[in-house]
Amino acid sequence: MTGEGAIIRIAQLGAGRMGSVHARNAAANPRLDLAWIVDPRAEMAAALGKETGATPAPLAAVLADPAVKGVIVASSTDAHLDDTRACLAAGKAVFCEKPLDLSLERLDSVAADFARPGLPPLFVAFNRRFDPHYQALKRRLDGGEIGALESLQIVNHDPETPPPAFIPGSGGLFKDFTIHDFDLVRWLVDEPVVEIFAWASCLIDPEIAALGDVDTAKLLLRTASGKLCVISNSRRTGYGYDQRIEAFGSKGALRVDNVTNTAVSVWRAEGAQADAFPYAFIQRYADGYRAELDHFADVLAGLATPETGYAASRAALAMAEAAALSAQEGRPVSISVG
Amino acid sequence: MTGEGAIIRIAQLGAGRMGSVHARNAAANPRLDLAWIVDPRAEMAAALGKETGATPAPLAAVLADPAVKGVIVASSTDAHLDDTRACLAAGKAVFCEKPLDLSLERLDSVAADFARPGLPPLFVAFNRRFDPHYQALKRRLDGGEIGALESLQIVNHDPETPPPAFIPGSGGLFKDFTIHDFDLVRWLVDEPVVEIFAWASCLIDPEIAALGDVDTAKLLLRTASGKLCVISNSRRTGYGYDQRIEAFGSKGALRVDNVTNTAVSVWRAEGAQADAFPYAFIQRYADGYRAELDHFADVLAGLATPETGYAASRAALAMAEAAALSAQEGRPVSISVG
Amino acid sequence: MTGEGAIIRIAQLGAGRMGSVHARNAAANPRLDLAWIVDPRAEMAAALGKETGATPAPLAAVLADPAVKGVIVASSTDAHLDDTRACLAAGKAVFCEKPLDLSLERLDSVAADFARPGLPPLFVAFNRRFDPHYQALKRRLDGGEIGALESLQIVNHDPETPPPAFIPGSGGLFKDFTIHDFDLVRWLVDEPVVEIFAWASCLIDPEIAALGDVDTAKLLLRTASGKLCVISNSRRTGYGYDQRIEAFGSKGALRVDNVTNTAVSVWRAEGAQADAFPYAFIQRYADGYRAELDHFADVLAGLATPETGYAASRAALAMAEAAALSAQEGRPVSISVG
Amino acid sequence: MTGEGAIIRIAQLGAGRMGSVHARNAAANPRLDLAWIVDPRAEMAAALGKETGATPAPLAAVLADPAVKGVIVASSTDAHLDDTRACLAAGKAVFCEKPLDLSLERLDSVAADFARPGLPPLFVAFNRRFDPHYQALKRRLDGGEIGALESLQIVNHDPETPPPAFIPGSGGLFKDFTIHDFDLVRWLVDEPVVEIFAWASCLIDPEIAALGDVDTAKLLLRTASGKLCVISNSRRTGYGYDQRIEAFGSKGALRVDNVTNTAVSVWRAEGAQADAFPYAFIQRYADGYRAELDHFADVLAGLATPETGYAASRAALAMAEAAALSAQEGRPVSISVG
Repeated sequence: MTGEGAIIRIAQLGAGRMGSVHARNAAANPRLDLAWIVDPRAEMAAALGKETGATPAPLAAVLADPAVKGVIVASSTDAHLDDTRACLAAGKAVFCEKPLDLSLERLDSVAADFARPGLPPLFVAFNRRFDPHYQALKRRLDGGEIGALESLQIVNHDPETPPPAFIPGSGGLFKDFTIHDFDLVRWLVDEPVVEIFAWASCLIDPEIAALGDVDTAKLLLRTASGKLCVISNSRRTGYGYDQRIEAFGSKGALRVDNVTNTAVSVWRAEGAQADAFPYAFIQRYADGYRAELDHFADVLAGLATPETGYAASRAALAMAEAAALSAQEGRPVSISVG
Repeated sequence: MTGEGAIIRIAQLGAGRMGSVHARNAAANPRLDLAWIVDPRAEMAAALGKETGATPAPLAAVLADPAVKGVIVASSTDAHLDDTRACLAAGKAVFCEKPLDLSLERLDSVAADFARPGLPPLFVAFNRRFDPHYQALKRRLDGGEIGALESLQIVNHDPETPPPAFIPGSGGLFKDFTIHDFDLVRWLVDEPVVEIFAWASCLIDPEIAALGDVDTAKLLLRTASGKLCVISNSRRTGYGYDQRIEAFGSKGALRVDNVTNTAVSVWRAEGAQADAFPYAFIQRYADGYRAELDHFADVLAGLATPETGYAASRAALAMAEAAALSAQEGRPVSISVG
Repeated sequence: MTGEGAIIRIAQLGAGRMGSVHARNAAANPRLDLAWIVDPRAEMAAALGKETGATPAPLAAVLADPAVKGVIVASSTDAHLDDTRACLAAGKAVFCEKPLDLSLERLDSVAADFARPGLPPLFVAFNRRFDPHYQALKRRLDGGEIGALESLQIVNHDPETPPPAFIPGSGGLFKDFTIHDFDLVRWLVDEPVVEIFAWASCLIDPEIAALGDVDTAKLLLRTASGKLCVISNSRRTGYGYDQRIEAFGSKGALRVDNVTNTAVSVWRAEGAQADAFPYAFIQRYADGYRAELDHFADVLAGLATPETGYAASRAALAMAEAAALSAQEGRPVSISVG
Repeated sequence: MTGEGAIIRIAQLGAGRMGSVHARNAAANPRLDLAWIVDPRAEMAAALGKETGATPAPLAAVLADPAVKGVIVASSTDAHLDDTRACLAAGKAVFCEKPLDLSLERLDSVAADFARPGLPPLFVAFNRRFDPHYQALKRRLDGGEIGALESLQIVNHDPETPPPAFIPGSGGLFKDFTIHDFDLVRWLVDEPVVEIFAWASCLIDPEIAALGDVDTAKLLLRTASGKLCVISNSRRTGYGYDQRIEAFGSKGALRVDNVTNTAVSVWRAEGAQADAFPYAFIQRYADGYRAELDHFADVLAGLATPETGYAASRAALAMAEAAALSAQEGRPVSISVG
């Protein structure tokens, strides 16, 4: 708890898994006062409220509270777009858990709503940009440490396949999972991606194939100037989360290696074994989740403009749709995103 | 900020460097309400109060506030012992920044004050026990992962020599710096150290020699059952903080390697270069400082007894005095600590 | 020098760069007696002969020497095929420096010559299969250590672009350089590659583009059962040779990291810097070159059949031609190799 | 096998374990012709002779062969001194497997024999100086890469305890094992060690204690200018050979990390596991054994003077005796070696 001066009142929609992450971070952030928590599942709202000091309330009450300056939208994915628009219309700044929506067509159909003058700021939370390791990578790339960037290789592998029930509403591998990589490429390469080629297989879980999705993919992306990017995706590693980036430039390479839980290792007859990798995104990107919420506090305080909003969401989604088309038709697909 | 229910009111003595660390952690800890900050240096008290929401106050007021359940003693080292005793006498639990005192004789002379029945809990903050890397090491050692522990090697090197003005009040290298290693050895080896041999040199800064201190030391410690420990100390690395532990056992070895700032590395003609090491204790042990304060919150909530108190402080100080005597007389010195 | 018993007399065609490597290894191999060295460049033949104890001679003399049991063909690339056929026809076993030829059409046109019964053994030296690191990888993959292999990622980057004069006769990036990766994929994946997609750019040296070649490429390969492989190629790293393989399986991953010159590192303010990487193939694969020659000694002694011969050469070349076609036409290309 | 020109005829005494290593290296060295092998154990001499092309012979024949320019003395340790003196007296250069002798008194009593003018060169093979990792370390230390050296830490741990039968003739831990570290310290620190303190325990194998020896030791060494060195010895790791050096200087640190068999690692749920460490000295120092023999070829060819001879042997042995005395009497022991 800290002094009253700078505290900004916010509310949150959604008390699920990501909602818990954000609400806890809000509770520990001395600049934010998480006043309201909105979730039709009353028990979950009550439990998270008890843990974080927020009071369960209906959405209408939140939108009507003039003291609420910002809203964290962590409702179900299919509600993100409407919730976000409602909050913005009510004059609240929005922190929207990604994705803003899973349909490029729908996103385009409401484009005008996000272009109105005087709209409160919208931050769509692509958390990986806030990871301290990736931030250091970006800073060093921009600092010219390896000269001109020529190619990029991203490994983004999940520890284990999601439950089948998750698949139908997920948007599929490219929109649900690779979307992070598309945004990372845009952020790191800093020039438009113009063509995507994707091969995908279902090598792990036949149930995923039965639901029309894939679990393993390798993608190539080409930028306007000919830089080449590789993305490797898998839904199951057998060893926790695998999150790596390699950037090759004219003067050397910069890498982010996979993070370990601690610096402890054990030396045995089989060899030296480092500590385990973080199991999944909740552990691996804990710092990033804290930092993106702090970024939202900066936005609310007028100290920053959102790192990623409607345009970045649309661009990553367009790349995901192009990748899906490429995988389906077995040919490179051209795209045109900002 | 979080709900009111479990919040415990505390105060803090001292608004210096370590005081700032603890006060910020208290402000971010949802279970604690740092109400008062005491420091004769009014400007520093005001600045830290403004940052953390605490109100500057005189010590008497803090001791008289019945709502204050605990006090963080982060005053100047020579005030630790009296401040701690005053707070305990006033019925407040104490979190005392290490050391409790720099004189074994003085500590012994007030031993009775710490043995009174009904005394509130005293936690002397040996922060390294709360570092997540060392905690994982301890857990795995205790789990028998390398069989019986046979020897231990600790590297504890500072990035650069302290300003000369710091030396006279520091207690010298062994009491100021090696004291952490003595406590780590006791904690990890889990049996009494019975003999210490120390060689020390002044190889870095002649001013330190002129002040009667040393800047480089290598120590051997022997336990009751013959386990052998090595401690390496230096006041200057040229590469930031160097904090490593190796434990050799009958079935293998466990190590804590030096931590890096991030998992980024750059590959250049000269070779692959990992990211820099944390500069010093403030950066390296940030997690440990947070965790030790959370431990104090547990103590205040009746969920834990202090990990380290008067006895651990006395034992580490006795080892430091034995080391100093060994270095001075060039012979192993026997000790008897719990 | 060693006992006479088992020594087998061989000859070598070519005293250039790779010829020097092989001749020196032959001289140090106690089972081989390098008797003759053939090269129209008399001075080079003499120098290498002096260093290795071999006597310069014309090809006819070598073919006519009944004591010569094997010939190392390390002549210029465009002479490999004819030299190899001549030696085989003369009843000599052949160690042919890769490639056997740069034209799939030509290779196919002489297929019958390699299918004759009673032909002496032909070993085409794909050196990477003999690297101890890759051999350990292969052994562990085959041992089931990561379950079923699902995908493979190879990084094969050269330290710096070759001189422009090298390009025209090289066959281009895919035939000259990626050919190693094609063979590695076939060896490691152990099932037919059925489709290849390649994107290539000239990002490093415009002279290479002017000569119709590329210097940067990313390739995807798909096997019959849907396994996906990525190959990354670059003609320039800025940090020496970059040679890595990652294999992802159903139970974990196996990796070969880039090798360093020694286990020495330096710790400085910027971070810990490992020793430099081997500059290029001569240094990195020194052990593999020795081992492949020892494999030839095994073949000569009747202890082994060639690890790779005409069929492996043809398959890798077919993959290279498919990759070139894919890069040219911007579409995946199907192939059918054993 | 190579050309005749530069080949130098040598002989070897001893066909045991180290004898096999040296004889194989001699056979593979194109500059040396290992003509004779001397060992009273006729079968062993015959077997090694067969493998390396050398002919078994009695010592007298070897000494009488005027073509023999050098002799590798790899007989039993207690014969080293007499064999070496006999060969030198016969005008043969000597490569003596370490140690020259286990008694400082005996070594001193024959000092005059090694000081005679016109004596052929004597190389006592302290193999670790020829390890490429340590050579790189030495070169970089001497190049000033970390400024002035201030302290050194050596880890020298064996994989498992030797058979009890080995202990009585070994000279004990300090003369048999730590002797390598004493020589490394002298070589790396490049100034006289003036004082040694050693603690030793028998923590692993009570049989070793029953034979009057120890299996675990930690030593401190102090040089004339106050540099401090730590040596850690253990007779059993549970994970193969552990061979590391850390050098701390005024501008940073240089380290040689423990070497692994290959660059392969496996990533599993427990974490990333590097390949195993070399089991013991035969594997770990294979390159060094080759290089030290090549150094002897240089000596024989008049291209080098022996890196280490009588003086280095005497100095390391004096340090071992001082360490044993220190461990026995529990006090630092002063020494005076060159």
